[in-house]
Parts: sequence; C-alpha cells; structure tokens
Amino acid sequence: MSESKLRFLVFGAHPDDIEFGCGGILLAEASRGSEIALCVCSRGEAGSNAAPNEREAEAREAAKLLGATIEFLELGGDCHLQISPANNIAVARRIRALRPDVLLAPVASLDQHPDHVIVSHLCRNGARLARYAGLAALRELPAHAVQHHLEYAITPGSEPPDHRGKIRVDISAHCVRWVEVMECHQTQLRTRRYVELQTARARLLGLEAGVEYAQALYATGDFLIQSLADLPASVRIF
Amino acid sequence: MSESKLRFLVFGAHPDDIEFGCGGILLAEASRGSEIALCVCSRGEAGSNAAPNEREAEAREAAKLLGATIEFLELGGDCHLQISPANNIAVARRIRALRPDVLLAPVASLDQHPDHVIVSHLCRNGARLARYAGLAALRELPAHAVQHHLEYAITPGSEPPDHRGKIRVDISAHCVRWVEVMECHQTQLRTRRYVELQTARARLLGLEAGVEYAQALYATGDFLIQSLADLPASVRIF
Amino acid sequence: MSESKLRFLVFGAHPDDIEFGCGGILLAEASRGSEIALCVCSRGEAGSNAAPNEREAEAREAAKLLGATIEFLELGGDCHLQISPANNIAVARRIRALRPDVLLAPVASLDQHPDHVIVSHLCRNGARLARYAGLAALRELPAHAVQHHLEYAITPGSEPPDHRGKIRVDISAHCVRWVEVMECHQTQLRTRRYVELQTARARLLGLEAGVEYAQALYATGDFLIQSLADLPASVRIF
Amino acid sequence: MSESKLRFLVFGAHPDDIEFGCGGILLAEASRGSEIALCVCSRGEAGSNAAPNEREAEAREAAKLLGATIEFLELGGDCHLQISPANNIAVARRIRALRPDVLLAPVASLDQHPDHVIVSHLCRNGARLARYAGLAALRELPAHAVQHHLEYAITPGSEPPDHRGKIRVDISAHCVRWVEVMECHQTQLRTRRYVELQTARARLLGLEAGVEYAQALYATGDFLIQSLADLPASVRIF
Amino acid sequence: MSESKLRFLVFGAHPDDIEFGCGGILLAEASRGSEIALCVCSRGEAGSNAAPNEREAEAREAAKLLGATIEFLELGGDCHLQISPANNIAVARRIRALRPDVLLAPVASLDQHPDHVIVSHLCRNGARLARYAGLAALRELPAHAVQHHLEYAITPGSEPPDHRGKIRVDISAHCVRWVEVMECHQTQLRTRRYVELQTARARLLGLEAGVEYAQALYATGDFLIQSLADLPASVRIF
Amino acid sequence: MSESKLRFLVFGAHPDDIEFGCGGILLAEASRGSEIALCVCSRGEAGSNAAPNEREAEAREAAKLLGATIEFLELGGDCHLQISPANNIAVARRIRALRPDVLLAPVASLDQHPDHVIVSHLCRNGARLARYAGLAALRELPAHAVQHHLEYAITPGSEPPDHRGKIRVDISAHCVRWVEVMECHQTQLRTRRYVELQTARARLLGLEAGVEYAQALYATGDFLIQSLADLPASVRIF
Repeated sequence: MSESKLRFLVFGAHPDDIEFGCGGILLAEASRGSEIALCVCSRGEAGSNAAPNEREAEAREAAKLLGATIEFLELGGDCHLQISPANNIAVARRIRALRPDVLLAPVASLDQHPDHVIVSHLCRNGARLARYAGLAALRELPAHAVQHHLEYAITPGSEPPDHRGKIRVDISAHCVRWVEVMECHQTQLRTRRYVELQTARARLLGLEAGVEYAQALYATGDFLIQSLADLPASVRIF
Repeated sequence: MSESKLRFLVFGAHPDDIEFGCGGILLAEASRGSEIALCVCSRGEAGSNAAPNEREAEAREAAKLLGATIEFLELGGDCHLQISPANNIAVARRIRALRPDVLLAPVASLDQHPDHVIVSHLCRNGARLARYAGLAALRELPAHAVQHHLEYAITPGSEPPDHRGKIRVDISAHCVRWVEVMECHQTQLRTRRYVELQTARARLLGLEAGVEYAQALYATGDFLIQSLADLPASVRIF
Repeated sequence: MSESKLRFLVFGAHPDDIEFGCGGILLAEASRGSEIALCVCSRGEAGSNAAPNEREAEAREAAKLLGATIEFLELGGDCHLQISPANNIAVARRIRALRPDVLLAPVASLDQHPDHVIVSHLCRNGARLARYAGLAALRELPAHAVQHHLEYAITPGSEPPDHRGKIRVDISAHCVRWVEVMECHQTQLRTRRYVELQTARARLLGLEAGVEYAQALYATGDFLIQSLADLPASVRIF
Repeated sequence: MSESKLRFLVFGAHPDDIEFGCGGILLAEASRGSEIALCVCSRGEAGSNAAPNEREAEAREAAKLLGATIEFLELGGDCHLQISPANNIAVARRIRALRPDVLLAPVASLDQHPDHVIVSHLCRNGARLARYAGLAALRELPAHAVQHHLEYAITPGSEPPDHRGKIRVDISAHCVRWVEVMECHQTQLRTRRYVELQTARARLLGLEAGVEYAQALYATGDFLIQSLADLPASVRIF
Repeated sequence: MSESKLRFLVFGAHPDDIEFGCGGILLAEASRGSEIALCVCSRGEAGSNAAPNEREAEAREAAKLLGATIEFLELGGDCHLQISPANNIAVARRIRALRPDVLLAPVASLDQHPDHVIVSHLCRNGARLARYAGLAALRELPAHAVQHHLEYAITPGSEPPDHRGKIRVDISAHCVRWVEVMECHQTQLRTRRYVELQTARARLLGLEAGVEYAQALYATGDFLIQSLADLPASVRIF
Repeated sequence: MSESKLRFLVFGAHPDDIEFGCGGILLAEASRGSEIALCVCSRGEAGSNAAPNEREAEAREAAKLLGATIEFLELGGDCHLQISPANNIAVARRIRALRPDVLLAPVASLDQHPDHVIVSHLCRNGARLARYAGLAALRELPAHAVQHHLEYAITPGSEPPDHRGKIRVDISAHCVRWVEVMECHQTQLRTRRYVELQTARARLLGLEAGVEYAQALYATGDFLIQSLADLPASVRIF
C-alpha cells in the first residue's frame, strides 16, 4: 500500500449521506494518515424522525469516529437546495479554502433524492470555478485544482449503470467500525434498514472483487499513465 | 515511473491493426523492458493493395522495430474469421502458452471491420477459457489468468462512446518511432492516410490530457485499490 | 397471493446457473404448486473442479430439492455452445414439447460467461421458432406461444443496466432452502464464494424493496393491462 | 378485470397535455369507478391561438367529459415554470391534500416543451417531499406515499427510448370518447393535427399489443411480486 | 425535388420484409425513375400460413407493383440464416454484381425476428467486403463502394432508440399504392394485421413531420457537406 | 455547392466558444455570402488571464475576421448563467429580432463548462418560445421558427457519444484563416493549447471523412426528404 497521505474534502447533502455512501473508504484513508474534511449541505431539516440539532449532533459524533473535521454549509436547507451561481461559488469557496487533493461528491443519477443530484452538480461546477482565477467573488482565495474528483453512490439505485472501469476500494479491515459510524445516525435507523442495506451492498461489491467488503468510487474523467505498471489491480473473478 | 516489467500478449485481426491501434503504447512498454508478443489473426488476404506474404513481411518488420515477437494465428484468414468454440480455444491456447500479465485486444464496437469485432470477442472468450482447468482441449497447458485485460480502438469510429475512466497512456517520447513502425505497412498507406489519421488522434488524446501525444486503453472490468494513493493521475485540463 | 398455478420451463447453460440465478423464485413457485422443468445446456465439462458426471449428479440433487424435473440438452458441451439454426430449433423443440406458460432464460449482457449469452439468444430465437407452424424441422409438434418470457441474471455483473420496471420476486420465505439448493453444487463452492455472493445480492434486492430477500426478473417485452388495478405493487422505499 | 377502484392525481403542464397524453387511460379508469383529479400547472398563456380563459374553459369542459375534477396550480404561468424548492413543495402539498393511490406525470425526456420536463421533475421531487414528515412548510398536512408513480409521454418524440417492460393500457372501448375529450381543445386544433397524431399513436401501440388502441405508461421504479401469477399479461405479438 | 436517378439494392430476410419496412420509399423512388433491385434471403419456409412457393409468388407480384426486379438468395432458408464468411461473401457478390448507389438493409436491433438481425449484419459485412479488391472469392467482379448505406426498421419495436437525425421520407403521394403492394402478401395478413400496423406507423411518422405519411431510414455513418445549404429540411413541428 | 445564402444566429457562452467550436464552419458560410450574427452570453469575467474588456475586444476582432456581427447578451455574467424563464425569453427575443434560417448553439453534454450546458438549454427553450405567438413578454416581435437548429461541441469531451448521422462540414479551404480567428483570443492561449487542440480535432474529423479538415454539427431533430437524391454525401472511408 502506498505511503503518501492525501487531503480529502467530501460533500454530502444530508447529515448521513457521506457515512452511508463512502464511510468505509474514509476510514481506510484515515487509518493511513489522510486528512478528511466533511462538508454537509443541510441539517436534514425535512426528515421525519429528528430535529435538525439532533441530526447535526449525530453527524458530529460520526465525524469524530471517522477522525474527520465537519462543517455545515448553508445552502437553503434540506429539500431547498438549488443549482445556482451563488451555490456553485459557495462550494468553490470551500474547495479553495481547504485545497484538497481529492474531492468526493455524490453521483448525479436522477433516481435518488433531488438534493443528492443538486450537490453532485454543485461540486462539478464548484470544482471548475475553484480553478478560474478571474472570478471576482472568490478573489480573496487563490485558485485551486483538485488532483482527483471522484463520486460515490449513496443508494444502490443511484449507482451509474454500465460504468466500466469504476474503482472499488477494499474496506474489509474497516467494516466493523464503519457500522459504528453509520449507527451514529440512530434517528434515521428507526424506520429504514440503512445499515443492513449498505453492508449488503458492500458485501456484494467486495465478494465480486475477491475481498470481504468494498465500496465503489466513480471517475469523472480519464486517467493518464506513463506505463501499465502504474495501473491498480483489475478485478477479474467471476 | 514504475520499474516493474510486464509480459504483454497483443491480439490483432490484420497485419497493421496492432501498430495503428496501440503501437505507441507498446513502444513505451518495450522501452522500459516489458516483453511484447504480437498475435495476428490473418495475413490481410482480402486487402486491395498487397499479397499476404508482403503483408506478413511488413508486419514482421514492424514487430522488429517494436522489439516484439510476432506469430500468425490460422483462424480462416482475412474476412473469414468467426466466433466459434474452436477459435475461442485457439486464442485460449496462446494465452496459456505465453502466460501474459497483460492481454490487449481490439474493442468490440460494431462500427468497424467485422474481423476486429470477432477478434475482440475471441479474446474475451479465450481469456475465460484460459482460466478453466477442466477444458479437455487445453489440458496439456496449465490454466492461466491474466492480470489486466484491456482493449484498444483501431479506428476513431470504434472508440467506445461515453466511456468514463478510460486509461490514456503518454506516448510523447515515442511518437517519432511510432510513425516509423506504422510506416512499415507501406502497402496500406498508398490509398489511405492512416498514419496522419492515427497521429491526429493521438495528438488530440494527448493535448486533452496535457501531454504531447497519447493512446487510449479501455478497461474491461473494474479496478480494486487499498487506498486512493494507488490511483493513477486523473486528467482534468479542459 | 394468486392461486393460479403455472408451468415453468427454465434454461441454464451450466449445471448451477439456474439455481444461482433464480433458484429462490423457483422455490416460491413450487411452494404454490407450479410445475418446474429445468433444461441445462451442458454438464459443465470445462469446469476446474469436477467431472461432468459429478456436476450432473449435483444438478439432479438440486432439482430434487427444487421439486423440479431436469433434463440435459446436448448442444456441444460447456464452452462449445453456439448460436446456430440447429441449436435454435433444439430449444424450440423443448418449448413445443413442454408447452410452458413461463419461459425463464439468462439475460444477454456481454459481461459474463459466453455460454450464458448464447443460451439467452437460443431462448429468444427458440421462443419465436416454437410459434412458427411452418417450420419443417418441428412439424411433429404443435406450435406453442409462451405467456411470459422473462430473463434472470446469473451474476451481479450481468444485471441489465438502467432497466426500469424490472420484477422483484419476494423469496424471503424460501431463503434457507435456497441456500440448501445452491449448496448441492459443492464442487463449485470450493474456490468461489457463490452462495455468499448470491445471498448478499438477494439481500440487497430485498432490502431495497422492503422485504428480506428478493431475486429479479427482467421483462423481454411490454405488459398489457385493462386497468391499473391489474398492476403489481410498485417498489418505492428509498 | 379487477374491481378495486383507485384514486388518481394527474399532473400536466398545459391545459391539453393530460388529455392528449393519457386521456384514454383516464376514461378507462373512470368507467370502472376510479376517482380522477387533474392538476394543470398553467393556463397555456403563451399559446398562439387562444387567451388563457379560453384555454381554461376548454380544459374544464374536457375534465367534465373525463368525469374528473380539475384545478389550476399557480407556478408562474406557461413558459415560466421552474424547478425550485417552492414549486416542489407546491406539488407535494397537492399530493398530501388529495392522497392519491396513483400519481401520473409527464416523462422527463429532453426533446419536448421544457414545461413538460419541469413538471416531470416537480412531480418526482414533490412525491418524495410528500413522504417526509419533517418538512416545516407542509406540516399542516399528514405525509403521504403514493402506491404507483407512473409517467406518460405527451408527444411520440418524448417516449423514453429503449424502455423495456412499459405498461400498455387497452383503451379500445374508450377511443371514440377520448377523441371527444381531445376535441374540447378546439383552439389548439386549428394549426396542429394533434387528434390525428394521438390516435395514430394509440393505434400503433394497440395493434402491436393485439388490441385496437392503447396508451402507454412508464414505471419510475421496479415492481414487487409474490408469485408470477401476479404479473399482468405480456405483449408478444410481432 | 432532385432529378438525379439512383440505383437501389434492397435486402430483406423474408418475402414481405422489404414491402412492410420501406415499400413506400421504394414507390417514391421508382416514380422518379430510380432502378430498384430486391434481394430476398429466404422464401419464408417457416411461416405458419403458406408454402414457400406461395410466398415467392406473392413477393414477385409485389415487386411487379413496385416496378422492381427481385431475386432470392440461398442462405440456408427461413430461420436458418447465419452470419458466416460464406454468407457475407454471398451478399458482397450481389453488391458487386449490381453496383448500387444506395444499399438498404434492415436495422440490427435485437428485439425482432433473428433473421432480420442476421441480414442486417450480412449487409454491413458484405458492403465492406464488396470494397476489398484482394478478396479471392470475389475476384471475378470489380470492387464497388455504395454511396449510401441506410437501414429500415421492419417493425416499430425494432426502431433504433434515441436516434437523432434520422431521415424521414415523405410517401404521402404513394400510400394507396403502398397498401396494394403490402396486400400482395395475402397469406401473411390472415392472422396478423400488418397493413394496419404499418400504415398507423407511417401516419405517425408523417404527422410528426408535417406530411400525411412517412417512412424512416437510419444512417449508418455521418454525412459530409460543403455548406449548410446542402442539408435536407429539418423536422421541427411539435 | 448550393448557391442559396442563409442567415445564421450563433450562440456562445464565453467570448471564444463560437470561434473554437464552429469557427471554420462560419468562415465557409461567410465565404459563400451567408450572413452571420454572433450572440455571446458573457464577457468571460471569470477567466484567469484577462479582464472582460480585453475578452470583448478579442471577440470583436475575431468577429471581424469572420465577417460576422457580434453582440453581448447580459444574462448574469460568466459562471453566473442560469436556466430561467427570463433568460429563455431573452434568447427567444434575439431569435425573433434577427429571424435566422439557422440557429447554432453548444451541445448540452454534461462534461464541459456548466455555462455551455446552460446556453444549450437556453437556445432549445428560446427556439421554442420564439415560435409561440401568445407569449406576452415577446408580443412586440412577430413569432419566428428557424429552419435548422444544430449544435456544435466546443471541446472534444463534450461531443455527444454514439451520435450516428452527424453532419461534418468540410472546412479545408478555410483552415488557415480559422487559425487566425482563434488566435484573436491571445489571452486565452497563454495557458491552454486550444488552437492545437481544435486543429488536431478538425484534422481527425476531416481525415476520417476523406478531406483535410472538418468540423461537426449535431442535428436536434430528424430530416425530411422527398427522395434520396436530396441526401448529402455519406461518409464511408474507414
């Protein structure tokens, strides 16, 4: 395993999206010394089962278990997110402020909560704006280009169909702790079996790849190599 | 750049497919000590501009410039290739005999010479059969699983549409020699401007990725990593 | 639950495909009195871990647990299947002989064992030929049109991407027995964790739909209703 | 035919969208006692051939023939619709107020009037928000989850391509009356041959399915069944 | 309307495919002096309702009404067609012998009679082989490249989904005669309402484009123009 | 080549989009007497390398070389564009005011600058609104329907995947001047090799089609012809 540590900035729409969608990956990264910053775009104000301050407290607890910092971005609140120049710029401002190596965001598939889709687009737009030096609204912060912009799927139904070459991350060594992280969101687990759903999904992604558990990331662009020795392992089991 | 050398087995339908479709990549690999074996599935018997023995001589000359071994597989001849159990097994036999780390084959897009599509399917099937120990017809050779099975597009029209996460290989340092390799196929260059077509294409793939020239490879499955430090560089220029 | 019993004809390429791909569905149907006939198109002759007679014995044992009849169709053997008029007709002959209400076959996605794809196409073609009265080769048997022609995915990688409106069948009550059915194929479970893979998959398909376990079927055509009261339940949980 | 009556809520962007896109289906449902509520999101203020009050009068006349209630939702007016949190909530409020079993909305294909696409997205978002109990703006109304959320295509060009498993509804017995319903929109028929277009389309969808006339509905999710006896009839004619 | 006459070669799998799939277009072309040659790849030997000699007689009658020549190609017979080098070459031989400007063939969509798909592929392969001068089997005939290779869809279910830029041909002036052409195939009309199906379809394609009746052709490649004045009319009605 | 002159209205998001994406086509049209009007929807205010007034000056210089008029539309500024009724109407107003035969706009593929996508949608919406006579906000200008609405791809990554039947325009005679037009945007060429990127791309599109250089246009709808003699040349080289 490589020794180089990375700086992560991870966006989610609601207080539990990140933990469910890529929590195991973040634990794997934290365990090798990477720095993780979470940026949550609402406090789950529309949820059926908890008040926003409870949701925020759960997310802060989960972030602590992840070894991550967490902040809440004010973009209008749960179910009130919108793609707008102001929101694109707000996301770009966080990217410039934190200067991550890796940006993680939800995928943009339509078949999921509309806030997930909107945060996906805000991150795509924000990552571009973070690079454009001339943008007056962001002039106080130097431009920044991330090294990797990858996406995660919060629910199985939002996994991009027919995506060849996706990245599976082995999270076998972190699965127990990942369950603990997800279980921080107790208010959300009263009516939906999210933890079982996510572990069944990680089990399937792992077994297909010959390991115990895996979570997937989707590239938003191509890769560039000097030699095929630079490629990660290919999955060819079944 | 990684130091580890790899063993390549590269399939093509006709004597010039490999050189046009991934010749620059092979030069890059050969330059760092990888072993390259070419397996050509016809002698171009249907071509307008040359006899099969001329085509074979050109291919042997090109293989020499590539620093590769070359063999011709008898599968019925140019425009007579077929997907059949016997041909699947013939390909699997070469894989078992040569035991490559990396298998390169044409993509299977429909909009190209039908022989290209057939060789693509023969390689997909052959790579599976090479792994199945019980296959009576191959019992004399031990089963073998390749580490990477990647595909190359011989013509721009056959590039798989909408493939996110494809692999671009920087061939900038090898472009002059790649032109020499392609120019070995003099009989094919009399009526078609293949060399200009391929260099324009590599120029475009390279400039988009921030280098001078690149050729692309398409993953046939997912990748598995332990950490994002294992990922190759992402292309994010335009 | 409806009381009407159905006659099933289920095709698979290898001795364990049916059990892994739709075994739970068949148990659910058998439990309500439907008749199940399995038609296996090889004896797994190319497999690494068992002789064909062992594979056949395992399949016969599994069929017994399923409460199904089983027959083996001679189409050239494992890894030697082909799409050909003769094989299309051989499949059509079984359809005419058994006159099923429901035909189940593998999906035709490319990313799986080529024999699976071939059996999928043989069933599509055979189901048509079974209906054409003029076909000389089948004149001894009256033409037959199935009521439903549905497909199952043997591996998760072969699930048709972006298929809206697929049919999930609740197999929660039959999951324990389904594991017993799959475990009949002991020779295949030595090197691959198929049972865990399939149960993780059924768990995921089930939890998404609000039940414990489910397996999916893919329609090959449209449905016709007189009123929306005729529709089965829609899945709308996450 | 099933006896159970259903409560329908049907959204359209302009005064004639519902009648053209699924009028025959609504007549079939009304004839068996289902309750139909239409919700029209503009008064066609941008149309070339009539004033908004004429358009509204035509729609009210058509609703009467359909045996449906009708209301007009103020979302900015024809050609001024937008996807916004406020509009999502406005749609969710109608769903909570009327508590339908079945929600019908336009498909979201891009190749049609932009208002159609926007109403499609507003319904997808609104149907979710209707279920989230915590949403402050809707607290006065209890949360509601629809049983079926299906979509209809107003024009042939907006039919979702490559949608397997769509639902065709036999409207043969209601076609004469459906033409009368469409002809209520006289101002729209002066320059466009909508009635002929829609009946040609229903004729084609019907003949393919072995009946006289049919209209299609597109599932937005999967179906869940206990047994294949629960499936509606499959279309397998040509 | 342009004055230049064209030479057409039209392939079909069965005796009525061409008439149903593009008969109106052929009448339009014949009326302006183009030469039409039909090449039918079976005699419908598997059909339920007629003997092969009846089918052939019907096709010859239809060809007469179309003002076309007709020949029957022996490729194994109805339901016995195969993609093979020999059959590819047989098609290429007809192309070289007749030297058409325009080649019309069925589309290759999977959801139709397998013979249609096979003839589509034979034509794609044959059109290439017709151009390769070195092919020993065809050396007696000079190589030939068609100007246009377009495809037609025999049934509505086989229309390529999401094909932007397809070509609609106005057949309004020829619709009555087209029905007469289709009605030559009396034996096929006893159990299936093909004529109504095809006219409903042409009505829909026509009304959408602002004319009475149209049939569609699908490009197999791009177009090259010197100026936008060279473009045919765009359809922009609804 | 046809003699008829056309009136063009071309939309771009930033001062160099039009020149890079279809500058060669516009030169070809201008050379035969067509009138070209450019409408640029920002002044590139967010760019890294120049002030808006420099960007505007460069665009005016390029327009002069193109022989085109140019205007700047105020829609919020670079990186602040939005799809909104007001912006749709602003675009429709330009269409009604200029009454073009041909409307050119960027493609709507997601993988490019978000402003490009937004301008694409504004043009799709605006072209519709320009036709609706009842729209109060535009009543001062008579309705107008364009003859052709075609799209261009500013970057290679935004080319619509799998688009069969696209239009390639031969720009070989105008390539030198096109480079001069692109080089007007000197401030943009300091950090990105856009001119080399675009000429490599045009070279590839041209060589594939048998000419020196070409740029591509994508149809937004179908074409309608009376006879196949009306079709432009098909590209069938490789």
